[in-house]
Amino acid sequence: MARVAILGTGLIGSSIGLRLKQSSEIRDLEVIGHDRAYDAAQYARKIGAVDLIERDPAMAVRDAALVILAAPVLANHRLMADIANALPDGAIVTDTGSTKAETMREAERVLPDRVSFIGGHPMAGKTESGPKHADAALFEGARWVVVPETDAPESAIEAVLHVARSAGAEPMFMDAEEHDAYAAAISHLPLLMSVALFRLARSSEAWPEMSLLAAGGFKEITRLAATDPSMSFDIASTNREQIAHWIDRLRETLREVRDYVTDKSHEENLFKLLAQSELEYGVYRGGKVGREVESGMQDVSGFDFGSFLMGEALREKMREITRDQEERMKRLDQEQRSRRNV
Amino acid sequence: MARVAILGTGLIGSSIGLRLKQSSEIRDLEVIGHDRAYDAAQYARKIGAVDLIERDPAMAVRDAALVILAAPVLANHRLMADIANALPDGAIVTDTGSTKAETMREAERVLPDRVSFIGGHPMAGKTESGPKHADAALFEGARWVVVPETDAPESAIEAVLHVARSAGAEPMFMDAEEHDAYAAAISHLPLLMSVALFRLARSSEAWPEMSLLAAGGFKEITRLAATDPSMSFDIASTNREQIAHWIDRLRETLREVRDYVTDKSHEENLFKLLAQSELEYGVYRGGKVGREVESGMQDVSGFDFGSFLMGEALREKMREITRDQEERMKRLDQEQRSRRNV
Repeated sequence: MARVAILGTGLIGSSIGLRLKQSSEIRDLEVIGHDRAYDAAQYARKIGAVDLIERDPAMAVRDAALVILAAPVLANHRLMADIANALPDGAIVTDTGSTKAETMREAERVLPDRVSFIGGHPMAGKTESGPKHADAALFEGARWVVVPETDAPESAIEAVLHVARSAGAEPMFMDAEEHDAYAAAISHLPLLMSVALFRLARSSEAWPEMSLLAAGGFKEITRLAATDPSMSFDIASTNREQIAHWIDRLRETLREVRDYVTDKSHEENLFKLLAQSELEYGVYRGGKVGREVESGMQDVSGFDFGSFLMGEALREKMREITRDQEERMKRLDQEQRSRRNV
Repeated sequence: MARVAILGTGLIGSSIGLRLKQSSEIRDLEVIGHDRAYDAAQYARKIGAVDLIERDPAMAVRDAALVILAAPVLANHRLMADIANALPDGAIVTDTGSTKAETMREAERVLPDRVSFIGGHPMAGKTESGPKHADAALFEGARWVVVPETDAPESAIEAVLHVARSAGAEPMFMDAEEHDAYAAAISHLPLLMSVALFRLARSSEAWPEMSLLAAGGFKEITRLAATDPSMSFDIASTNREQIAHWIDRLRETLREVRDYVTDKSHEENLFKLLAQSELEYGVYRGGKVGREVESGMQDVSGFDFGSFLMGEALREKMREITRDQEERMKRLDQEQRSRRNV
């Protein structure tokens, strides 16, 4: 009988459990669940994400061939220390944490040589947390970053690739530092930006009025503020430098946007920025990602339709603005004349 | 027969048209549609949002008792100039633009005294634009800001309140400057922040890799980058000062968040920020808006359950961090001893 232990039966752990149990590839699979919050483990068992639950993480991993750490990053580090001595020889340990470099170092430091550690990060999630929101289809089509230890045996890597693939995800090998740099830009920065915007609006004296006016756009853009604070804290405190770097760059970009907005001589730049973003966002949401990006907006003949469209829109907008200004000048001029004639 | 002219049959104009036509209160209502893009007007007629279409805005308003300007802000200003002489005596003109102060000034300057202008802004929308996405239920439960001219007759105000209410919205009187200040914080800043984040990530050399990793959170938080650039431009160029003010404040908040992330001595502040945001966001999404906010998290006895919960979470997290640090120190100490003993 194959035994898998899932430590942390929140949204991610329970979703993996559900999927593993549904997959018919492994016969007689037994999944042991542990969660610091006992009711979360109980709920995971109720929905069939795990078969058994265990209060003590060391007991949970005793006979496990594969251990999946699915708690927030720092909690995963604590779990490593808790299970280190109890892990069977040859066990494979993986995780689903949002940052990778510190976790790889922690595994190297804490786990015994007789087990292998393969870092992992399924790039999927929801704002809602906990096993109540578990979904076997959560990882469908998502990338699942895989970061093997330098000396990891092929069989250990294969086991983790198998989990990722059977969850419907596409595994993607990556260096831990590389992962953390990218994740800072497309995941950790958005999270903190969402928090910053919500705090800013919420702490304004006009919040009672603002909250009445705020429509879908505001609710959506601040939604990441609902992320479990323990998870956010663990992310921030294990990827400090990369996050700081991207906050700095965002502040710089915002300063530039501010200049475009305030300085009338930048009207053309402002429109270009808005039109180019709309166009490229459309291309991105249309599915052009990865290496396709480079050929993004050019057809076979090399004609760049996107730039052509944007150029047209820009010329049209600039004509309108010029016309508006000319008409305003003409009107002012007429008003002055008629005043003089009075 | 009551005649209403809708100038600009995009998402907002067509949705208002659909709703007006569905409302049984007005018998023999005839809605005339105009759009600079003739196919948008044709589509609006096809779905029954307007009865007739008219290429010339001046012709469209000839016999209209009520004129609704539903194009982007600067296009609404151009339309005012186009229709000024053709408006019938006593006509009521309103708009649905995203900024109000410049539009009120423009109406004062351009429209004849024999008509009334009541500014309006339904606080609802979608990223998708155009009559294809028209939805009679779009304004259901939303606030509809109403900004009357100083000398507007009661009957004109009542007519606009009627449109808002029959669309399912809740009218809210507001001063134009006040509206623009609030809208800058909860609508215009999120829009430009979304654009800034998308531009920043998209222009990175690592975008091919990042775009593969980006999951739901990134897609959602950058979704406002898909806003029609003409609409965004018109917003930015008619609310420059308020937007600049809020960009400055956001940059300041981000600098503070950055300090919390980089400086280990701020760990408590970082966790507090994250936990408080999560808690307050929950209260906000739970429906506490407007004046309810002040009593937000206190029950009748004055006991602040939110602060209590947060205090508990904070103490727990700080205990964990301290324990982690102590254990790390112990381990380091043991390692040093054993090295010395070698």
